[in-house]
Amino acid sequence: MIILGIDPGTISMGYGVVRVDGDKVELLAAGALNCQAKLPLARRLFQLHTELDKLVVRYAPSEVAIEDPFVAANPRSALAVGRAQAIAMLVAAQHGLPVFTYTPAQVKQAVTSYGGSSKEQVQEMIRLTLGLPQPPQPNDAADALAIALCHQRQTYLNRLVETGPERKP
Amino acid sequence: MIILGIDPGTISMGYGVVRVDGDKVELLAAGALNCQAKLPLARRLFQLHTELDKLVVRYAPSEVAIEDPFVAANPRSALAVGRAQAIAMLVAAQHGLPVFTYTPAQVKQAVTSYGGSSKEQVQEMIRLTLGLPQPPQPNDAADALAIALCHQRQTYLNRLVETGPERKP
Repeated sequence: MIILGIDPGTISMGYGVVRVDGDKVELLAAGALNCQAKLPLARRLFQLHTELDKLVVRYAPSEVAIEDPFVAANPRSALAVGRAQAIAMLVAAQHGLPVFTYTPAQVKQAVTSYGGSSKEQVQEMIRLTLGLPQPPQPNDAADALAIALCHQRQTYLNRLVETGPERKP
Repeated sequence: MIILGIDPGTISMGYGVVRVDGDKVELLAAGALNCQAKLPLARRLFQLHTELDKLVVRYAPSEVAIEDPFVAANPRSALAVGRAQAIAMLVAAQHGLPVFTYTPAQVKQAVTSYGGSSKEQVQEMIRLTLGLPQPPQPNDAADALAIALCHQRQTYLNRLVETGPERKP
């Protein structure tokens, strides 16, 4: 299974693509789609839609995980996150892919087993999980990978609960 | 010139289409795109995108006006408004149409000459301006028409300022 994780922003949209096989996870791609902040918002959203669509065509994920802050710092940032989320969700729906959303606390909890962990702790866990020489850059890419890994853990745990662990002799 | 006005919402997206000739305005269409609230959000956004795209193809507006609350009631509603705005802006950008945004106070000011007027006063002015037997229904359609009319007034005034009023002998 290939998971696309998205950290939604209208200036920089982080993405992380991982291939999952049970509890094994492999990094396929990570980065950030950047828009010129000077461009009109509608043009930025159009660019993000086009670039995100290319990513989905290229990596053919089967599931998309998106960060959804239950509360935002302020209404202006909530508007911006909502806009970026909508573009990501639309691309997923246009490709018939299911969308899963996680709060920042759920992502931290899943990746580091502690909902209040720091950004650095999350990045270090991503580095270790994916066997990377250093944490992925930029920060939005690391955040997107954390969301993808959160979905992988959640899916893996759900399946364990449903089927029970494989017994080894 | 044909203007498409949008009142952004992810359950109900109001739209109003008017044909403008100087200070004359004619109603072409108004209504609301409704989604089943039970559908997953990504599916709703996909539906809204598809329906809005059909509207743009059908009425071929040259400009799109969208409501943009500078502050929202709360972060959750700001997220929802942001998502709906993004879909409307994306459709406009995909058709190469310029997007204009107006705050609710700007819309009221433009339509009724008073930024604090009530919903009923706005609706009555829309009815009078468009020569309708009764205010357009549902409310989201009336709100969208108010946004389209706000943009028409703004465009008309801007042109007056640029070129001066036509003198009549």
